Amino acid sequence: MSSTDQPKPGADHPKNTSGITMRDVAKAAGVSVATVSHVVNDKPGSRIGEDAKRRVHEAVAELGYRPNALAKTLSQGHSRFIGLVADAIATTPFAGQIIHGAQDEAWRHGYVLLVANTDGNTAAEDEAIAMMLEHQVRGILYSTWFHHEITVPEALLQTDTVLVDCYAAGSGLPAVVPDEEQGGRTATEALLAAGHRRIAFVNTTTPSPAQTGRLAGYRSALQAARVAFDDALVFPASPEQEGGYAATTAVVDSGATAVFCHNDRVAMGLYDGLRERGLRIPDDMAVMGFDNQDVIAAHLRPPLSTVALPHYELGAAGVRRLLGLDAALPAGPQLIACPAVPRHSV
Amino acid sequence: MSSTDQPKPGADHPKNTSGITMRDVAKAAGVSVATVSHVVNDKPGSRIGEDAKRRVHEAVAELGYRPNALAKTLSQGHSRFIGLVADAIATTPFAGQIIHGAQDEAWRHGYVLLVANTDGNTAAEDEAIAMMLEHQVRGILYSTWFHHEITVPEALLQTDTVLVDCYAAGSGLPAVVPDEEQGGRTATEALLAAGHRRIAFVNTTTPSPAQTGRLAGYRSALQAARVAFDDALVFPASPEQEGGYAATTAVVDSGATAVFCHNDRVAMGLYDGLRERGLRIPDDMAVMGFDNQDVIAAHLRPPLSTVALPHYELGAAGVRRLLGLDAALPAGPQLIACPAVPRHSV
Repeated sequence: MSSTDQPKPGADHPKNTSGITMRDVAKAAGVSVATVSHVVNDKPGSRIGEDAKRRVHEAVAELGYRPNALAKTLSQGHSRFIGLVADAIATTPFAGQIIHGAQDEAWRHGYVLLVANTDGNTAAEDEAIAMMLEHQVRGILYSTWFHHEITVPEALLQTDTVLVDCYAAGSGLPAVVPDEEQGGRTATEALLAAGHRRIAFVNTTTPSPAQTGRLAGYRSALQAARVAFDDALVFPASPEQEGGYAATTAVVDSGATAVFCHNDRVAMGLYDGLRERGLRIPDDMAVMGFDNQDVIAAHLRPPLSTVALPHYELGAAGVRRLLGLDAALPAGPQLIACPAVPRHSV
Repeated sequence: MSSTDQPKPGADHPKNTSGITMRDVAKAAGVSVATVSHVVNDKPGSRIGEDAKRRVHEAVAELGYRPNALAKTLSQGHSRFIGLVADAIATTPFAGQIIHGAQDEAWRHGYVLLVANTDGNTAAEDEAIAMMLEHQVRGILYSTWFHHEITVPEALLQTDTVLVDCYAAGSGLPAVVPDEEQGGRTATEALLAAGHRRIAFVNTTTPSPAQTGRLAGYRSALQAARVAFDDALVFPASPEQEGGYAATTAVVDSGATAVFCHNDRVAMGLYDGLRERGLRIPDDMAVMGFDNQDVIAAHLRPPLSTVALPHYELGAAGVRRLLGLDAALPAGPQLIACPAVPRHSV
């Protein structure tokens, strides 16, 4: 979904909460939201004309508007808040789209997102969850900036919880995660489709679902294309530019004509290494990334072909899962597809 | 402030709001926050022992805890919320630290941040502000993902508002913005200090305070060093990798030995252009960036010397300004310093 067709927040409030918003009153009275706020909150220093005041009061009475969202919440027993507790996604130049997707989906259904960024600090997390429980949230999305297994904070068990971009085996909590294996398969298939048969894989040294899932996808794509898996073509590297740069010699010496990189930062480092050796991309070496990382992928020379981590969709699916809006889902984490983003490096 | 010493959210609640938090009750009763939540919300299906329940009820009575933050808010007439309306900072791999700084500072003073990301969509913005007014926020921070002049949404005038990373001349609203001129001066001084006298400046083609401020800083640093300003050394470029790459020939042909780039993305493109010509950084050309953009600056080869945009501090200063915590400030936008981040490209 593009930013241009995002839903108007609160557009569904009347339907979903049987509530009337300040905006509805403004429309009915033919005044601005600011004027309604002024009148219903009876702010001192107001210079609203008597006629406008009368129209607002009439619209309030006619529509049954309750000027205070908090009072409304009290009478309903739960609030229109959904909590999002995140270790670092608001501040990582990477996964902020989880917030974007969750917010859009929450607004679409008349909810507002309360975001707390905890930096993975347990005490901060505990406080954030307590704050959200005190505000009677409808439920909490608990999210991490990269896909991994977590230990569930005890307090989360007091409300409806959905894990986003993480999971807790045996916890019984629903989880929404990227389909790492399909992503690895999609990346490898793009290189196979371009005619490559000797395809290196620069994988991360960090144990994670991305490490095992993307490798499994790489293997299954090779197998489907009847290309023998060769362990000598899999190179471990730290998952950033420096790791990709350091892996260049090994990749080139392996005789590979194409390389699937664990992520776009690794690909960026490999670009530097290849360039130093006078090798051209994709003519001498085709390169496939992973993540579709903003600021990097589209701006390398040549622009990097990659596979996107579906952060926006992870956030949106998390909210749908919390509100019970999706049809019957399979047991285990709900997998969100990682789509191919073809550019010019393959 | 590093992430390791961030304040615990809510740590100051008792002092600042005369309120007792769920966490205080948990401590007094010797149980977890989750248990307190269970008991005070009287959730069905609870398996809390009678002894723990009794201790919680005793602690609630003793401390005067009011289990419902919203009820507490109603009785106080305003909530513990501060609104943050942002056009894209939660989702731009760039300015999310504004949220981080605002949240840390808000929590420090017993407030919770309500974040709404609007993508600059006016209708979404209007709804977000109305939602915040309905939730009786203490005030609103209105922020943009890059520094520019804005038109103030009318509804913002209904509450205390601070503009963050933007400003509205003549509006009378307080604003907190980066000190672009000092940043440009600092960047240029780093190149002068390394002995360069013929210093190019690749500036953006986009009119903005960054465009004029950084140029003014470049000029004032040259003047202070008694280096004549030469208009032929200022090159316009689109403010991303492609712009920097395209500017390489002109910069090299100008005879400059050093170049100050409008931002780190421009520097990244220039790196590619210099490398293609076999030129070494910093030996053949010293390069200074701006932004200290995560994922890029520290990971170029060589790591990029740059000047940081103080996003965290902008958010924190915005909250302090809203709460009236800073001492007397000068008229006009409050300028936040852009510190030098030396690495290996100068």
